Amino acid sequence: MTAAPARTLDVVGIGNALVDVLGHESDEFLAEHGLVKGAMALADTDRAHDLYDDMGPATEISGGSAANTMVGVASFGGQAAFVGRVRDDALGDVFAHDIRAAGVRFETPPAVEGLSTGRCLIVVTPDAERTLTTFLGAAAEIGPDDVGPDLIASAQVTYLEGYLFDQPSAKEAFRFAAQSTHEAGGRVALTLSDSFCVDRHRADFLSLVEHEIDILFANEHEICALYEVDAFDAALQHVNHHCEVAALTRSAKGSVVVSGAEVHVIDTCPVDGAVVDTTGAGDQYAAGFLYGFTHGYDLGRCGQLGSLAASEVISHLGARPEVALSDLAASLLT
Amino acid sequence: MTAAPARTLDVVGIGNALVDVLGHESDEFLAEHGLVKGAMALADTDRAHDLYDDMGPATEISGGSAANTMVGVASFGGQAAFVGRVRDDALGDVFAHDIRAAGVRFETPPAVEGLSTGRCLIVVTPDAERTLTTFLGAAAEIGPDDVGPDLIASAQVTYLEGYLFDQPSAKEAFRFAAQSTHEAGGRVALTLSDSFCVDRHRADFLSLVEHEIDILFANEHEICALYEVDAFDAALQHVNHHCEVAALTRSAKGSVVVSGAEVHVIDTCPVDGAVVDTTGAGDQYAAGFLYGFTHGYDLGRCGQLGSLAASEVISHLGARPEVALSDLAASLLT
Repeated sequence: MTAAPARTLDVVGIGNALVDVLGHESDEFLAEHGLVKGAMALADTDRAHDLYDDMGPATEISGGSAANTMVGVASFGGQAAFVGRVRDDALGDVFAHDIRAAGVRFETPPAVEGLSTGRCLIVVTPDAERTLTTFLGAAAEIGPDDVGPDLIASAQVTYLEGYLFDQPSAKEAFRFAAQSTHEAGGRVALTLSDSFCVDRHRADFLSLVEHEIDILFANEHEICALYEVDAFDAALQHVNHHCEVAALTRSAKGSVVVSGAEVHVIDTCPVDGAVVDTTGAGDQYAAGFLYGFTHGYDLGRCGQLGSLAASEVISHLGARPEVALSDLAASLLT
Repeated sequence: MTAAPARTLDVVGIGNALVDVLGHESDEFLAEHGLVKGAMALADTDRAHDLYDDMGPATEISGGSAANTMVGVASFGGQAAFVGRVRDDALGDVFAHDIRAAGVRFETPPAVEGLSTGRCLIVVTPDAERTLTTFLGAAAEIGPDDVGPDLIASAQVTYLEGYLFDQPSAKEAFRFAAQSTHEAGGRVALTLSDSFCVDRHRADFLSLVEHEIDILFANEHEICALYEVDAFDAALQHVNHHCEVAALTRSAKGSVVVSGAEVHVIDTCPVDGAVVDTTGAGDQYAAGFLYGFTHGYDLGRCGQLGSLAASEVISHLGARPEVALSDLAASLLT
C-alpha cells in the first residue's frame, strides 16, 4: 500500500482557459448584434470574428471563470492550481503568463494543433453589466487526459465550472475529475456559471448536485433556474435538501450559505467608490469562500470572505483582484 | 372540570393605545428639538405640548404599534382583539371608533380619571423616515386588571409590544398576559418595538425570549441590539437557539424567518409608486405573518404575507392599511 499524496494544494480549479477581450459599448450595440444583456452566449469562429471586428478599442486580460477564482484563492494566500487548455499561440502565452504570475500552478501543456486559444468578448454597457460572447477554441478540447489524478488527489477541493458541460470532451473531464476527487477523499465544488448554462444542462446539473457535488455555488438567477422556481426562498428550500453546502449569491442583497440546519445570511461589503463592473463578483466570492473553507473557518466566515473578495473586484474593470486579498482579509482572519 | 373557551379569536394584541399626530418637517427641525431620526423617545406632558406647539399643521390618526397590527390582521379577514387604555376624552373616542371600525374587538373601558389619551407625535422628514415622540398618557396606566384571562384564552396568539416594558404597571400586564396565554395553551408573540427600547430592557428581553416568547418579531437594528452584535448573521445565529420562531425584517432586504432548521429568506414585495412612509412596515409585517400563522400556512408563506402587508402600508402616509389586505393576498392564499 502506497501512502496517499500529501494535500499540498487547497483548491484545484478546472475550467475554460480564456482570454477576455473587454470593450465599452452601448445598449444599442447589444441590440444590433442580437446579444442578451448579462448572459453568456457561445460563438463559433466566424461569429466571434465578426463581433470582434465591430467592437471599438478593447483590452485583453486573462480570464475564465474557474481560472479567475483560482487567482483569487492565491491572492488570499491559498495554494491553488488550474487545469485548462490553451493553444501554443500568443493569447495562450498571455493566459499562462498571467495565471502563473498570480501565483497559481498551471501545468496543462498547450495544444500544438487544433483551434486557437479561446477568448471571451465582453461588452460592458453603461450600467456596468457585462454581456459575454465566448469562442471556446482550444479550451473546449480539454478532456479526461488533461485532469491529472495526482494533482486532484493533492488538493482538498476540486472546483468545476458548469460551463464545462457545454462541450462533450470537457464534460467527460468534469466527470472524471469529480470521480477522482471523491476517490481521493476530497470535496467537489461546482459553480452553475450562468442561468442559460443551467437551462442547457438542467437534468445533468440536478443529478450532479444530488449525487456528486459537495459545495454548490450559484447566484439567485442560476439557483432559481435550476429548480424552475421564481422566488429565491423556494430555491433555498430545494437546495438545502440537495447538497452538503450551498453558497448562494444575491448581488446587492448579499449571500446565503446553507448546510442543513446551519444557515447564514451574509451582507455585502461596502465598495470603495462606484461599482464599475459586476460579473467577476461570483468568481471572487467563490475564491473567498473556498479559501475560508480550506483553512478551517466556519461557514459564516467563509461567506464573509466571499463578500469581501467580491467587493474588491466590482470596484474596478476586470474579474481578477487588483490588490492582495490577504491584506484586505486580515481583520476577518484573526 | 369546565370546558376550555372556544378559540374564537386568532390574535389578541396588547399595547399602548395611542393617537398619532403626523406632520412633515425638515431635518433641521429634528436637530433643533434634539430628536434622533428613526427613534422613538418618550416625553412627559410638558415636552409633548412644547413639541406639538412647534409642529406645523398635522394629521391625527389612530395608531399604536400592536393596535396597528391588529387592524392589519382584521384587514386580512382574521379575528383580532386589542387591549389598551385610553381616557374618556375626544382622542380616546377617536381611538375607539377607528379600531372598532376596522373590525377589531376593543373592550377595554376608558379611564375616567388620570392622564389624557396618549399620543405619538410623528415627524416625517423628506427621506420618508419617521421620528417618534410619545406621550403615553392613559396608555401607560394599563395593568394586569385590564387583561381579561377569558379574552386571552379565546385567542390562538397573544401579541405584545416591547414598549409595554417602559412603564411598571404595563410591564406587569405584559407578564400576566404571557402567563395567562401559556396556561390556556396559546402562543406568545413579542415585537421588540425599537432598538432604544431594546437597550432600555435588554436583560428582561433576553430572559423573555428564552423562556416565554414563542414568536419573536424584530427588525435588523433591534435584533442586533438585543445580542449586542454588529452583523445580522451573528444575531441570526443567536436567535435561532433562543426561541421557537423568529421573524426578522430587514427593510429593502426583505426578511428572514427562522425556526430551528427551517429558515426562509423572503424578499420584499414591489411597492406601487414611491415609498412614502416606512415605519408602519414592521407592524403590518407582523399582521401578515400572524394572519398566516393562525390560519395554518407554512412559515415561508407567513413571511410572504408579512412582506405583502408591509408593501401596502409604506406606499401611503399612516401605519394602517388603506385597502383590504385580504384582496391583495388572494393570490397567495389559494
